[in-house]
Amino acid sequence: MHARVFVSLKRSVLDPQGKAVRGALETLGLKGIEDVRQGKFFDLELADGDPAERGRELDSLCQKLLANPVIEDYRIEWVT
Amino acid sequence: MHARVFVSLKRSVLDPQGKAVRGALETLGLKGIEDVRQGKFFDLELADGDPAERGRELDSLCQKLLANPVIEDYRIEWVT
Repeated sequence: MHARVFVSLKRSVLDPQGKAVRGALETLGLKGIEDVRQGKFFDLELADGDPAERGRELDSLCQKLLANPVIEDYRIEWVT
Repeated sequence: MHARVFVSLKRSVLDPQGKAVRGALETLGLKGIEDVRQGKFFDLELADGDPAERGRELDSLCQKLLANPVIEDYRIEWVT
């Protein structure tokens, strides 16, 4: 089973990295950039198991370890 | 136009962050993890334009700024 977890700052939280990237892209010549947000992702290769149970485990671990739920959103995607 | 750029270390390059996350997930109780790789993504909101030209510009900027092509792979996805 292959899961991908996306973690990004909540929309209401300032994203200085994204802002820096936006500035750099404009300096390098990409015009018309309205917004850049940066996030991270984790590719997890898991041994097979009950998908529902795996999903619950992973969800709980996202809240504890992979994301900071105070300022970050996360999304789990199962890759088939 | 909304583009998402995924940047991750090449398969042949060691990923110490992924390794650390794997160890931490196991400590927290997620069993059967075979591999964890970490990467980053950029959400870009661009003004409308010719998609082919935009794609070329973005591709060139990925090589210059967003990714380090020596050790990283990148992938551009257009979100509709």
